[in-house]
Amino acid sequence: PCTLTNLFQPKTPLLPLTTCFIVWLTQPTCDTYRYHLVIRYHKMNCKPRVVVFSIIPRLGEIVKKLLPHENIKVVQFQAEMSAKYGRAVSEEEVSQLQDAEVLLADNNAFQQFADKLPSLRWFQGTWAGLEGLADYFRDKANPSYLMSRMSSNTFSQLMSEYVVGQIIAHERAWRLTDKKQAEVSWWHSDRVASYRSLQDLSVVVLGTGEIGQEIGRALRAFKCHTSGFSRTAHDPAQLQHAFDKLYNGSEGLIAAVSNSDYIVSCLPCTPDTTGLLSASLLQHARQGSVLINIGRGNVVTEEDLIKCLEEGPLAAAVLDVFQEEPLPATSKLWTHPKVVITPHCAGVSRAQDVAATFVENYKRFTTGQPLNFQVDISKGY
Amino acid sequence: PCTLTNLFQPKTPLLPLTTCFIVWLTQPTCDTYRYHLVIRYHKMNCKPRVVVFSIIPRLGEIVKKLLPHENIKVVQFQAEMSAKYGRAVSEEEVSQLQDAEVLLADNNAFQQFADKLPSLRWFQGTWAGLEGLADYFRDKANPSYLMSRMSSNTFSQLMSEYVVGQIIAHERAWRLTDKKQAEVSWWHSDRVASYRSLQDLSVVVLGTGEIGQEIGRALRAFKCHTSGFSRTAHDPAQLQHAFDKLYNGSEGLIAAVSNSDYIVSCLPCTPDTTGLLSASLLQHARQGSVLINIGRGNVVTEEDLIKCLEEGPLAAAVLDVFQEEPLPATSKLWTHPKVVITPHCAGVSRAQDVAATFVENYKRFTTGQPLNFQVDISKGY
Repeated sequence: PCTLTNLFQPKTPLLPLTTCFIVWLTQPTCDTYRYHLVIRYHKMNCKPRVVVFSIIPRLGEIVKKLLPHENIKVVQFQAEMSAKYGRAVSEEEVSQLQDAEVLLADNNAFQQFADKLPSLRWFQGTWAGLEGLADYFRDKANPSYLMSRMSSNTFSQLMSEYVVGQIIAHERAWRLTDKKQAEVSWWHSDRVASYRSLQDLSVVVLGTGEIGQEIGRALRAFKCHTSGFSRTAHDPAQLQHAFDKLYNGSEGLIAAVSNSDYIVSCLPCTPDTTGLLSASLLQHARQGSVLINIGRGNVVTEEDLIKCLEEGPLAAAVLDVFQEEPLPATSKLWTHPKVVITPHCAGVSRAQDVAATFVENYKRFTTGQPLNFQVDISKGY
Repeated sequence: PCTLTNLFQPKTPLLPLTTCFIVWLTQPTCDTYRYHLVIRYHKMNCKPRVVVFSIIPRLGEIVKKLLPHENIKVVQFQAEMSAKYGRAVSEEEVSQLQDAEVLLADNNAFQQFADKLPSLRWFQGTWAGLEGLADYFRDKANPSYLMSRMSSNTFSQLMSEYVVGQIIAHERAWRLTDKKQAEVSWWHSDRVASYRSLQDLSVVVLGTGEIGQEIGRALRAFKCHTSGFSRTAHDPAQLQHAFDKLYNGSEGLIAAVSNSDYIVSCLPCTPDTTGLLSASLLQHARQGSVLINIGRGNVVTEEDLIKCLEEGPLAAAVLDVFQEEPLPATSKLWTHPKVVITPHCAGVSRAQDVAATFVENYKRFTTGQPLNFQVDISKGY
């Protein structure tokens, strides 16, 4: 907040700004006052200092191009994409971010210095998952700055493309077909000729946020029977474009999995979702059903999953996320014949999409409108 | 003869029916008279003799269940699904079909005895492709019976699912990801993290019939940029639900392939389509574009295809149909690293779908309405 003094212009009346400043200091958790302050910034034509700190190639460059007249600094976070897990941020790097009022950064980097940026007023993450930050803030007061996570129509669509593609690939046994090609074998068996269409299938999506809705909408374009599960009930009118049916609560979850050929989880990692898909819950699933997990790996343990694959009812699991990532070489999942593994890439934060989401939110921030995808870190999403 | 309908009264004496019969015999190519005759059959509660002769498991059984009061005989065509190419129909089998007035049969079986059923008035094929029959009738008069090919919403959707699934699998390098899983390798490379969404892609569909339209519609549900190519121009109003843009003629084909990331052929086998995608035509395609062929194998020779894969511009070919099927073991396509082979199963004639299409057409036939998917065999589709 002390950076406010730097914003004074010669002809600015002192009193109202001071009032705002006091409100800011005394009401650190009240968004309304902060928005008022933001409007004031805007009217005074003062531009917040934006820092971009991400491993995503070209992100800073694209943001600068989209906001050519703003005050933007790019600090390239040097790391291999494959090393995105656990890369430590150096003291030197944090010192370069000190004056940031607005920070666009990778979630797992930010959690290492979330309390070390004195001027920060808004943090925009470059991806959707916030579990590291939620852990960080678990026993602390909510931060004095706004937080928003990454989401975009494109990101949600990438997730839906993964689900649609994997269902089609599984129904048509394309992985077996690939093996038959390698064997130079024209494999026109019943298995190849009697597959199901998406219009024959029932799919439940666990998680009915933007991603879940986009998955439901995409499947419905193929006349698939879709249902959505969320812990608490939502307004059906807002979800009917994506889901034929809605389920809530523990009883609802049992009903949901028992009525579905595919169970698709796009749930976030929170204490409520950990172990949600236990072996005893999955016993209610249809014989031959398939689990697709693109949310977080905490929803099911490796032991429970393997039990349900080997003793039923699951015919297969398509996994993009895991309890530990990268998935350890010792995991039995790697070589399990019923398991398909992709390395956490069902949806990726692409530079152009992250930049577009940030720019839209930046406009909202500097004009005092509520941010898109704002996070309540105490809930974890 | 135009007064034929006027002659008809509820208590039909023998004479008008005989007249009808004479008209039938003397005007074999005029559908109108035959429909009148059909109405007469219907009103007199005479049921045509239907014979089902197919290798599709349970097809006869399902048709009988859907039409419980009709005159239906099932002659099971015993053959392995994998042997569906070239299985000869025996004299004994043909003799069992002699009294058929309506025949629901596999296209490649029917072409072996298309002139040997004296009572036949309507042949409904169990799949879409008619090249064998078109060859058979090439230098002959059009047959005296009606012909309709298989098509259904489900069949078209199966084709569209194949296209959507294969594009997603290619963009995300899932076949490489499978190999990395087999190597127990968490392969989070740029290749995995920087794939394109369907909304980034332009796809041209060659063939704008029911199948092509369904492919366009499905891709559009993912905001893909779609265009349709047909030899002659069609009414854009009827195609705008599926395609953003339409191309026609030879010049149009060059423009179509040069503006697309994927070229999807669902063209039938006719003299006009043979060799249409020559190496010199494909030279106009975008560098890195992909050919998906789910129509017929005659559109491109193996030599031209391999040339375009090895010298550019094609990055890959996903092939479900071939010049010769089953694809000979000596074909270089089997082991080509840029080729994906599936054994002619992008769309399959499933018993329930074939039965539904037949039953709808049977109702049309017996009430004198035009058939769905009626064939002009001189055009080959």
